[in-house]
Parts: sequence; C-alpha cells; structure tokens
Amino acid sequence: MSGGSASATPEMVAHVLTLRCIDEPGIVAAVSQTILSQAANITDSAQYAHERSGTFTLRMELDVPAGAGSRLDVRLREELARFDPLLSLRRRDRLRRVVIMVSKADHCLWDLLYHWRSGDLPVEIVAVVGNHDALRTLVEPHGIPFHLLPVTPETRSEQEARLRGIVVETGADFIVLARYMQILSDDFCSRYPGRIINIHHSFLPGFKGAKPYHQAYDRGVKLIGATAHYVTGDLDEGPIIEQNVVRVSHRQLEDDLVRTGRDVERRVLTRAVRLHAEDRVMLTGHRTVVFD
Amino acid sequence: MSGGSASATPEMVAHVLTLRCIDEPGIVAAVSQTILSQAANITDSAQYAHERSGTFTLRMELDVPAGAGSRLDVRLREELARFDPLLSLRRRDRLRRVVIMVSKADHCLWDLLYHWRSGDLPVEIVAVVGNHDALRTLVEPHGIPFHLLPVTPETRSEQEARLRGIVVETGADFIVLARYMQILSDDFCSRYPGRIINIHHSFLPGFKGAKPYHQAYDRGVKLIGATAHYVTGDLDEGPIIEQNVVRVSHRQLEDDLVRTGRDVERRVLTRAVRLHAEDRVMLTGHRTVVFD
Amino acid sequence: MSGGSASATPEMVAHVLTLRCIDEPGIVAAVSQTILSQAANITDSAQYAHERSGTFTLRMELDVPAGAGSRLDVRLREELARFDPLLSLRRRDRLRRVVIMVSKADHCLWDLLYHWRSGDLPVEIVAVVGNHDALRTLVEPHGIPFHLLPVTPETRSEQEARLRGIVVETGADFIVLARYMQILSDDFCSRYPGRIINIHHSFLPGFKGAKPYHQAYDRGVKLIGATAHYVTGDLDEGPIIEQNVVRVSHRQLEDDLVRTGRDVERRVLTRAVRLHAEDRVMLTGHRTVVFD
Amino acid sequence: MSGGSASATPEMVAHVLTLRCIDEPGIVAAVSQTILSQAANITDSAQYAHERSGTFTLRMELDVPAGAGSRLDVRLREELARFDPLLSLRRRDRLRRVVIMVSKADHCLWDLLYHWRSGDLPVEIVAVVGNHDALRTLVEPHGIPFHLLPVTPETRSEQEARLRGIVVETGADFIVLARYMQILSDDFCSRYPGRIINIHHSFLPGFKGAKPYHQAYDRGVKLIGATAHYVTGDLDEGPIIEQNVVRVSHRQLEDDLVRTGRDVERRVLTRAVRLHAEDRVMLTGHRTVVFD
Repeated sequence: MSGGSASATPEMVAHVLTLRCIDEPGIVAAVSQTILSQAANITDSAQYAHERSGTFTLRMELDVPAGAGSRLDVRLREELARFDPLLSLRRRDRLRRVVIMVSKADHCLWDLLYHWRSGDLPVEIVAVVGNHDALRTLVEPHGIPFHLLPVTPETRSEQEARLRGIVVETGADFIVLARYMQILSDDFCSRYPGRIINIHHSFLPGFKGAKPYHQAYDRGVKLIGATAHYVTGDLDEGPIIEQNVVRVSHRQLEDDLVRTGRDVERRVLTRAVRLHAEDRVMLTGHRTVVFD
Repeated sequence: MSGGSASATPEMVAHVLTLRCIDEPGIVAAVSQTILSQAANITDSAQYAHERSGTFTLRMELDVPAGAGSRLDVRLREELARFDPLLSLRRRDRLRRVVIMVSKADHCLWDLLYHWRSGDLPVEIVAVVGNHDALRTLVEPHGIPFHLLPVTPETRSEQEARLRGIVVETGADFIVLARYMQILSDDFCSRYPGRIINIHHSFLPGFKGAKPYHQAYDRGVKLIGATAHYVTGDLDEGPIIEQNVVRVSHRQLEDDLVRTGRDVERRVLTRAVRLHAEDRVMLTGHRTVVFD
Repeated sequence: MSGGSASATPEMVAHVLTLRCIDEPGIVAAVSQTILSQAANITDSAQYAHERSGTFTLRMELDVPAGAGSRLDVRLREELARFDPLLSLRRRDRLRRVVIMVSKADHCLWDLLYHWRSGDLPVEIVAVVGNHDALRTLVEPHGIPFHLLPVTPETRSEQEARLRGIVVETGADFIVLARYMQILSDDFCSRYPGRIINIHHSFLPGFKGAKPYHQAYDRGVKLIGATAHYVTGDLDEGPIIEQNVVRVSHRQLEDDLVRTGRDVERRVLTRAVRLHAEDRVMLTGHRTVVFD
Repeated sequence: MSGGSASATPEMVAHVLTLRCIDEPGIVAAVSQTILSQAANITDSAQYAHERSGTFTLRMELDVPAGAGSRLDVRLREELARFDPLLSLRRRDRLRRVVIMVSKADHCLWDLLYHWRSGDLPVEIVAVVGNHDALRTLVEPHGIPFHLLPVTPETRSEQEARLRGIVVETGADFIVLARYMQILSDDFCSRYPGRIINIHHSFLPGFKGAKPYHQAYDRGVKLIGATAHYVTGDLDEGPIIEQNVVRVSHRQLEDDLVRTGRDVERRVLTRAVRLHAEDRVMLTGHRTVVFD
C-alpha cells in the first residue's frame, strides 16, 4: 500500500473499501469511475474473481476529500446497485473495536497488547473478558476494562447473554479468543459469522480438539503449528485466516512443544487479528481470500 | 488470479496488461472504462503507487474478445495518452522468449529445463549459450539450439557481438545468466536494461563478487542464500527480483555450503524467471515491485 | 560432521556407527574405550536417551585404521554385549543400495537422479521399478536398469514376488517410493520394516489418502506440504522422517497447488533419502530420531 | 536433550559440561570413563571436531549423584590435563546471571522478560541498565533493579566504570545489549570476550552501522533480518550466534520495515540468549559452534 495513505494530507482522509458480489463485467469500471467523480484517489487495490463460485472480491485503499466520505458511500451503493454487493467503506482512523477473551494462558494476550500499544495493531481494545481472574492485572493498567465471566455448564447460557451484552455496549466489531478455553455455543457463534477469531494450537486440519501438542508428539511430526480461523458451529472447522509452523526435534517432549508452540500461536493470532482489523480478509464460502 | 484466465473460452483470449506512469487521479478509471468499452473483462488486478517517487504501476489480467486485442491496445494508448505511460498488452499464450547463458555448473539450467518442460515456466527457450561445451548434451535433446561462445579477454567484444546477433535472430525478450561465469561488458548490459537476469550465489548485499560461499564460511553466518537480480553495469548491484535463504550449521564446510546453496540458487532463479516471464516484475528506480 | 571424515587419509577409513539399546550407564564409555583401543578416532557423535521408553540411540562417525574395521566391529559387539544392542558399523564409501519405484510423475525421480549424479546423495541406485514405462528414458541413459512391473489386482502378488526378487538380486538396502501410486500389500511391507520410504503429498497427519491437494484446496489451508515416512501396513501412518511446507495463496486452484506442491515433495523426499542413506534416522517406536 | 535431565531424581543432579581443546584421540573415552567412574550418567552429548583449526568442542548433559559434582569436576580436570582443555561443569539449576542493557526501544526487553517469567529462559536477570529512564517501569515491577546510566562522550569512561562495578557486584556471567544504542569502548569490550551479546537489526554482513532498515529499503531487498552476535572491538563484526529473516514486500516503507523487523529482532535475541545461557554456543575463532 502507498506510504501516504496512512497519514493523508489534511484535506484528504484515508479510507478502505471492501466489496463482494457476483462476478460480472464492469465492476471495477463502475467503482473507479465513481471514486474519480468524487475527487477521491485510489492508493492501493487488490481483487480476486473466484471462477468456481463466480464471486468477485475487491479491497481498495482511497484518499477521500474531507467530508466527502458519506457521499462517496451513497454514490457507490447507487452505481453498484445492479451488482447487489456487500460493500463497506470505512475511514482508516475509525479503528475496528475488539473484545478479547482469555482464560489463564497469557502469551497471546501479551503479544496483542504489546503490538496494540506500539501502534502495530490498528484496533480499539474495548474489553477483555476472562473466565478466570488471572489476567486482570495484565489488562487494567492499560485502562482496558476486564470482565470476569466464569463458566460452568449450568451458567453458560447466562454468561453468554452477559457477553452479548458487553459486545453490544462496547460496539465491538469482532471477538478474539486468545487461548480462551471454553466452548462457545452454536447459538452464540451463529450470531457473529465472520466476527469471532480463534487460535487453535495446531496446524489444522491435523490435531483438532484437546491436547494437540500431545497428539503431535505421539505422531512424531517434524513441524508443529498454529491456526487462526473464524469460529463456526463445528469445533476447529471454521475458515482459516492464517497458519504457520515451526520445526521441532526429537529432543522436544510435550512440555517443550507447548513452549515452542506458544511463540507460533501468538505470531499467528496477532497477524490474523491485524489482517481482519485492516479489512484484508474476505470470506468466500468456507475459505478466505486474504489481500495482504 | 482466476483459474479460468489461463484457459479462456474460445471467444475470449487471456491477456496481461502492464502499465507504469506518474501517479495521478483517474488512471484506474480510464483503464477499466476502456477495457469495459471493448467488451473485455478484468480477471485479476494489482497496483502500487509509490508516493516517494510518484510512480504508479499496474498489472492486470484480462479476457479479451478474440480479435479485439489490437484495438484494445490502441484504445488504451489513446485514453491514457495524457499519463504518458509505459504500457504493454500481451496475449498470455505468446510466451516470452529467453536465451539462457551457462558455463559448467548445470543445476540452474537443469531446474529451468525441468520446469519449462512440465509447463510451470511460461517461456520459449530459444537458445542456450555456453562459454563451455559441457552442457550441450543437456540441451540439444530438447530440440533447443546450443551455441558455444568461448570467451577470452581478447575475444570478448567479438563474442558479445555474436551474442547480440543471437538475441536479434531469436527475437529473445530477455536473457538469463544461469551461473554464467563470465562478466558481460557495460556496453552489452546497457543495451538490455531490465532484460538480463543473473543469479548471484549469496544473499545480497552480503558477499558480492567471487567465492561467496567461502566468504560466508569465514563470516560464520547461520543462513546462506541466493539472489536473482537485473544486471546493471555494477557487479551484483542491480535491482533485486527475488532472494531466499537456507539454514546451515557449523558442520558445513565450504564444499557443503556450495552444495546446499545450489538448491537455493535454482529455486530463486527459476522463481525470478517465472515472475519476469509473467510480467509480474516492475522496475521502479533501483528497486522492483513484484505483483505475485 | 567433521570435514575430514569424508576424505580420510589413506591409512584411516571413514566409518559410521549406529547403536540402539536400553539406556543404562556406561554405554558411551564402553563405546569410546573400544574405539580408542583400536586406534580409531571419533570425528562426530550424537546421541539421544528417550526417557519415556528408556531407549538409547547413538550415531558416530569414526576414522578407523585401514583393515581394522572388522576387528572393531567384533570388539564393539563383545564390549557392548551386556547392553544387547542393535549395532551397525559401515564404511562410508560402501554406499547404501536403493531401489526406486515410480509410476508416471517424474519430479521426485528427476531430483533424486540429479542429486545422485552430482554426488550429493550417497547411494547406489541399483534399479528403478515402474508400473508404467513412461520413465524408462529418464533412467536407462544413466546405466541404471529399469524394470516394468505393471500391477492389477490379479497380478499384484506375482509382481510383488518379482519385486522381492529384484531386492534380493541387487542387494538393495532400502526401497524408495517416488510418487509410486500402487498400494503395497501388508505382506510386502512387513518384510521391510524401516526400509521402505514413501513421499505423501500432504503435510501429515492432514489430508491422508487420495487427492490431498484437492482436500487442501477445499479446506482453504494457507500452507501445503509433503511428508516422507517409513511405510507400514497402515496407509500414510508410518513414522515420519521429514516434512516441509510452502505458503500458498487464495489465487491457487488445485492445479496450481499440485505444481507448487511438487517442489516441496521432491525436496522432502531427497532429504529423507539422504538422511536414511547416511544412517541418520533411528526408529524409536512410532517416531524417528534424526541426527542431522 | 533428554527429557529427564531438567528434572532429575532427588539423588541425581542435572549438570552441563562443556569442553574445548586440541583434537586428539581419546578425549571422549577419557571424559566418559571419568563420568562413569563417578557413577554419573550422560543424558545428552554433542561434539564437533574442526579439522581446519584442529579444535575439538564437546557439550554433554549429565546426571550426577548429589554431592559428587565437585569431585567429578576435579577428576575431569585431572584425567583431561594432557589435553589442556577449557572446561566447565555447571549444575543446570545454577542459572547464568545476566545484565540487560537498554535504551528506549522496549520490544527486545519485553520479549526477554516474558520468556524469563514463563520459565523458557534459564537465566537470572540480576539488573537492567538503561541510558534512558524510559523502561524503568517495565522492569521494577518484576523486582529487578534498574540502573540509569546516561552516557555522553565526556561521561562515557565514568559510566563504563560504574557498569563494570554492577557486573562485579551482581556476579553477572554475561551482558545482553537489547537494542542498547550506545557504543561500548574497545576497553570495555575486551574485558568480556564471548560475554557480551548484541542484536543488530539487519542480516549481517549486510547493512552494518546505522539505520539498517533505511539501507535495506534503498537496496530493495526482499527479506530483512536480525543478527545476534558476540561483541568485539569492531562494530557489527563479532562472531554470529543466531540470525533470521522475514519476507517483506515493495509496499513496506522504512517505518513498516522497522515494525516488521522488531519481531525478528526479539525472536533472534531471545533465542541467542537462551543458547548462550544453556552453554550451547562454543566460540571457535571468529565463528561459533552451536549445539542445539
């Protein structure tokens, strides 16, 4: 992306546009014509037409004259109406709001907080929710509210209702499960399609479920990994956003795999959160298109 | 890119368009409007506006109605005249023609031949030129002409003239130095800016010049690499197209580094040749923009 | 490994020793004392004591006075008798003999032949067996016998018997399935435990069985891989020797994944074959210890 | 390393032995015999004989009967006296003591603190020294003393004397420069050969000195990296302990390279510190042998 778009001149405001629709001729022409007609300028653009499903996805970064954003949004929807698109135009300085959920493991939360604090992660962390109290002291010094929501089979419904309340009150755009160990109900997940990101500590589709490092040790794999994916009703089956692996040796027992794996988990999750927050991940069926 | 563009329907022909000009508003609109007006369809698109230099680069894959290619080329040049662009529109089935130059080492040539034969490398290998005869038997069974041009300080000019002749006769688009060990003169290089690709067996800018693996051994680096770059007058200084590294251990002496390095060299060179052949590499000053 | 061991002085001959036994105190002392007593010298050594199973594995490279090899072998077995070890002492210039099995895909065979020819792969390729004739012309010019053994459900037993015959006649130490597409019977596999290496074109344990690249595409993984493993009765379940992955993008459809995957397959298989040929892979239960 | 050595039974205490001497026959025999004679057990072993320089290096992990450590140390020195070795035998629970030096950048310190706190990094952080006060609040909550030693050309000598005092008082084994931006004098460096680790934010030998990310941007490299090395009198020339790289794209300007680079820096430095703290790095001339 162009260097200038993140810090546009005073009269121009950096925006990001995403679009998904059925692939037909003329989409890019209509989009760019409309942008030009509003005196806006495209600073970056990426697209993908998935022949198999006939789906077209587009992501553009634009500099828009101050005050012209709403009008551009309206005009785009008018000009593209015939394509019936899913369209989003957002000022880049209006950061995506995220609720982070944790249990006891702190490495993913730690890495997200570090990158957020240093400006690498363009999000607004509006709340951290934990089913344990252990990580409160990591969070509150940053001025972020910490909510303790312990969960048992009996209290799950009630706690999920409170969680939905937090999402509404904070205006959260998405939820990140940062090694949160409780299962969220189908009901909960179905309310936020493409809006809940989980980190699973294996390289999917291998080693789903519990104790993936122990499974990995038993299988004697030479690389272990982590996978960030959108949460669906099926455990560890959702569309993959990002994955990575690291080499391990025969010397490493399960404990050591857990340690080594933690560094991959936090790198993968932080990257997935950044990609999502920058509107770079487009869901197409059960897969994701990532414009990076 | 869309899967279908490489094997377009009989009425539509896959093309690739590249463009470079000064960055101004309206370029993408003008391009896409023109494409639409010729009943062509954009199947893939990537662009980059380099704020620093004010340069705009674009690469698009298009399906163009059979027979409409020339007309589209003309219309694009007309509509974009005010941007004074460097523009190229090529049918994707008109493969880029390459002359490969070799000495005695065969690993890079071997890998290029393999990938070309199996359809991975969209080039037409119009000739192989060697300053030794060693690799003739690798080449001729494929029906590719092999030219022996031995070089000494006295015969260099004359041989370069013959080489230029081969480039002209074969209609070569570019030249690949596949571990070709002779230095090409400034005069020769200056005739083919952005059209000669060399593989240097180190991770530039480290270890320029001779015996880079010996230099790497002495320095005790933990990773060795290879770099594919466009050739300029300055040895090993040209714009980098692609690089990669591989981990090495203290156990590996120079011989072993040479062996390990060969696999990186051929991977990097083959990749760089593919990128160039697919018009994915845009020269911007001393750097390259790679749309991959 | 020490640089000198591959090219020992005329009076000293490079050997490799491997050993596996129950872990008890005194093994290394007994081994090194015996080596010293025969005027041999250890040039490299690696070991691993697997607490879980109580198994001890060791690999040493030694320079042994010419003519003293057999005596050292006898003395080692005497001195280590109380540990009841699996022990092997081999001159490094007595290369492991391999039978390579192929179908139609040539990329793995090509890479093995290339590395063997250039001295990187310390094996003696005693035969190539194919269930198709397609790759004969790749093999015979190297002076390697090619055996055509087509297989149908009716002829499987008979062809496996002929294959066993080839293994016996050539004195093959191990078999490499280089994208050989026929299933070998349990009976066949059980005769060669730890002596048949297969390359599976996925990153196990994901995507076992047929069409792994199609499975990978459907799952939308961001990395694809290949796995080299010892063959057991269970398909794709054998102990893993080596694996690697490569990043892919949403642009790549199945065809493209197959192409990209081929390069990982050949790298992984060639590496696994080298590791095995150099006695660097020690089977411990269902896992491997790799001394590299 | 063997699983059991980190948590030996009450009667056995885990130790690590390192040794460097001229390569001659009989070293391993003498070492293992001595170990056996003291009823100790080797749980892991790695060695390297560097033919070029005739140097032999060894690292072993041992379980030693409680109370027998000193006697084993004495016996080893006696039995190996003829080899005149550099020898070290250390209980693994006597952690190496480190002084960390910082300026304003916090990412490396943050990562070291995190890994130390979670038990991944077997060191005792005895002090953090900064030439700025900025990172005091990151350090003191962990109960680690923070010393502010601002440096100007006039006060350098005096501050280095104070720093030497801190090293003596804390009994520090080594010093880590975690993006510490002041140059240490030759005099200071020469007092601690092989005991000062620096992280340079480039992949050496490329881009030495100041602003390596800006240099990297100008050269248009496709991978950026970081290098951890022992500090010598020559800036950025010391023996390399560990390096790694990450891929970057044309989109990334200097700011973005700095951000991306920070993650490589901290990973490389943390790894180098762990390797050093576990006695896995053996200096041989200007290079390092790393037993990992």
